[in-house]
Amino acid sequence: MQRVLITGATGFIGNHLTHKMVAEGFDVHILMRSESRMPWNAQITCKITVHHYDGTIESMQRSVQAAKPDLVIHLASLFIAEHRPQDVSALVLSNIMMGAHLLEAMQENGVKHLVNTGTLWQHYLNEAYEPVNLYAATKQAFEDLASYYVKSSSLKMLTLKLYDTYGLDDRRGKLISLFQKMCQSGELLKMSPGEQKLGLVYIDDVVNAYKMSVEAVQQQSEASHESYFVVPKAFYSLKETAAIFEKVNRCKLNIEWGGRPYRNREIMKPFVGEKLPDWEAEIDLEQGLERMLES
Amino acid sequence: MQRVLITGATGFIGNHLTHKMVAEGFDVHILMRSESRMPWNAQITCKITVHHYDGTIESMQRSVQAAKPDLVIHLASLFIAEHRPQDVSALVLSNIMMGAHLLEAMQENGVKHLVNTGTLWQHYLNEAYEPVNLYAATKQAFEDLASYYVKSSSLKMLTLKLYDTYGLDDRRGKLISLFQKMCQSGELLKMSPGEQKLGLVYIDDVVNAYKMSVEAVQQQSEASHESYFVVPKAFYSLKETAAIFEKVNRCKLNIEWGGRPYRNREIMKPFVGEKLPDWEAEIDLEQGLERMLES
Repeated sequence: MQRVLITGATGFIGNHLTHKMVAEGFDVHILMRSESRMPWNAQITCKITVHHYDGTIESMQRSVQAAKPDLVIHLASLFIAEHRPQDVSALVLSNIMMGAHLLEAMQENGVKHLVNTGTLWQHYLNEAYEPVNLYAATKQAFEDLASYYVKSSSLKMLTLKLYDTYGLDDRRGKLISLFQKMCQSGELLKMSPGEQKLGLVYIDDVVNAYKMSVEAVQQQSEASHESYFVVPKAFYSLKETAAIFEKVNRCKLNIEWGGRPYRNREIMKPFVGEKLPDWEAEIDLEQGLERMLES
Repeated sequence: MQRVLITGATGFIGNHLTHKMVAEGFDVHILMRSESRMPWNAQITCKITVHHYDGTIESMQRSVQAAKPDLVIHLASLFIAEHRPQDVSALVLSNIMMGAHLLEAMQENGVKHLVNTGTLWQHYLNEAYEPVNLYAATKQAFEDLASYYVKSSSLKMLTLKLYDTYGLDDRRGKLISLFQKMCQSGELLKMSPGEQKLGLVYIDDVVNAYKMSVEAVQQQSEASHESYFVVPKAFYSLKETAAIFEKVNRCKLNIEWGGRPYRNREIMKPFVGEKLPDWEAEIDLEQGLERMLES
């Protein structure tokens, strides 16, 4: 029975992935902040071992030593699309400091496998690193720290670079949730002209990518860091996405297109990176939205 | 009169550079921690404007706004060759968090020029990024955050990648200071076999490189990040360095060569990167040690 330690398990992807890993028979340990709430029912919760991180290296050392996992899946992160000055410290603490503590504690305890989470936004136009926002830059900075551990302690690491994700129980306030609210309230929303292509991947496809990464990272023949993209089945513009949502949900979204400008450094046409070998998104946007409706 | 804001001004290089910039007629502002001491005499100290950083973004915003410099020279950093777990937080806070606060405050205040300090240790074997230690990885992580500001706020940035440095008033406890102590005490010291090549650059050469970078970064035609190496006039092995030291200082160093192993990931033959255009080290190790003796 393989033991996996998941960070960010109480978040959107973590929640679904934890479910899946328990169902697949893994011995699931999670690392969480004491202020986070566990989103699972008793059946799942009882099968999980919880460890705590309070921002100190000592709590991380204690947790990783107690968990002694075969593998870590690092999902914890703070996402801010357009930060303000007062967000900088939190971005560094959540996306770099916590990761540094994790890497160090893994090294100390001989944990040699890490599945990490990156973002398409580390790549504004192409494969080269060019961050769209400070959030993406902190993700890259974490990978730089990890490079040291890959070399010095033979860490095998695999980073999944995510596009947008959606699915049930999403409390992040992202696009699809916003559409759901607008559908019910009929509220008018000003949006950009809407021509930017979005890469929405349904949560089940995302969870599968993590599941396959768990196997892939353990098969890496030597200490190395591989990166793969969790590419959607198809890209739709924001406008097309709204139309598909309206069709599936049989509702009208009250959107003023062009009522606000594009974001600073908006990605108009996402870079399509190398997919995780043998993985492919199976659920198209229309199917994903239908699955959400059915549940 | 150009106004420059120097971080890490009370450190070894910062001390000398501040001296030089005051002498050259710059309006010198420094950013320091309240616990740091100013190493200068009254004549220099009176010409400097001091701002404080207490680890918060707010103190950084206040300081950069008050200084409103044309250019920042970022020297502040925490150097640890071989870190322990309890050093990780301090490395991230000093080498990443402080820099993130600085970049954000520069952006807010329209400060468009940054001379930054990197290390040869970001390059274990060649030009590609491969950190020798966690310290070097934190330096790279900072550059990744800076990439965002270069793109989003048209920052012009130049990073000087330093080899080893030495000179008067060096309180860092590095090799030459160690030799000076051993010379006086006659104490026996176990060292590695000593065949690793060292790239020692005399402080006057280093200060000149910064001085020229101040001009170069302002001449960059567009927002970009350039990196150059502060390459020594010659490389000597640790053993050769000891012999040159003994010759210049007419003393015998009591060293047990091979009494301890090489460091983990010791650089045996440093990578020689691209030099800052028009700059060249002028002071050979023997000359540098003589200058120190004369003063």
